[in-house]
Amino acid sequence: MKVDEIDIIAFESLLYDFYGALLTDKQKEIMELYHEENYSIVEIASELGVSKQAVYDSLKKSDNILRNYEAKLGLMRSLLRTREAIEAIDDKIEDLISLAEKDGSREIRNGLGEIKELIAKLGE
Amino acid sequence: MKVDEIDIIAFESLLYDFYGALLTDKQKEIMELYHEENYSIVEIASELGVSKQAVYDSLKKSDNILRNYEAKLGLMRSLLRTREAIEAIDDKIEDLISLAEKDGSREIRNGLGEIKELIAKLGE
Repeated sequence: MKVDEIDIIAFESLLYDFYGALLTDKQKEIMELYHEENYSIVEIASELGVSKQAVYDSLKKSDNILRNYEAKLGLMRSLLRTREAIEAIDDKIEDLISLAEKDGSREIRNGLGEIKELIAKLGE
Repeated sequence: MKVDEIDIIAFESLLYDFYGALLTDKQKEIMELYHEENYSIVEIASELGVSKQAVYDSLKKSDNILRNYEAKLGLMRSLLRTREAIEAIDDKIEDLISLAEKDGSREIRNGLGEIKELIAKLGE
C-alpha cells in the first residue's frame, strides 16, 4: 500500500497503532472499540454508559492528539515509506530469483534466497 | 551499528533526534547545545546566563521525557532494527554483485544494481 493511498479510516487506525500508547486508558478504550472492534459511536456509548457526545468528543480529541504527534515527529510516514521501499526491493528479488533459476549460478540463487529471508524478517 | 552497541551518549542523541520535537523550545535549546554543539554544562550555563544546576536539571528532565516516549512507543528501536537489517541486505547484495560479475547474466547484474539504488534511497 502506497503512503498516499491510505484512506482516512486506515490512516487513523495506523496513527493509533503508532502513538496510541500516549493516550489515557479511557481514550485508548474508546479508540479500540471504534477502530479495532468496529463498534459504532452509539454502541460504544451504550457499552460504556456514557453519552454519544462524550464518545464523539473523546474520539475527536484522541485523533487530534495522535495527529499532533505525527505532525511533530513524522515517524509513521517515515516507517511507511521504508516499508514501501522494502516491498519494491522484495519484488525485484523475486524477479531475480526467477531469472537466476534459468541462467544464474547456484551461489547467486542461494544468496537471493537469503536476502528474501532477511526481508521477510523485516516485516515481523 | 548494532542497536545493542550504541553507547549512552549516542543513545541520548538518537532519542533527541527522534522525539526532540516534543520538548519545549528551552529544553530543545539546551539539548542542542549539549548533544549537537558539544558544550559542557558550565559553558551552557554561561551562554544562557543560568545556573549549572538549572542546566543539569533541564538535561535530566529532557532525557527522562525522551526515554519515557521511547519506553511507550519503541519507535526508535524499531527503526534502528530495520536499518540494521537493511545494512545486512546491502552487504549481501554487494557479495552477489561480485559473484554476478564473474558468472551471472547481465540481467541479474542489472537487477542487483537497481536493488542497490533502492537501498541507497532508504538511507536518505
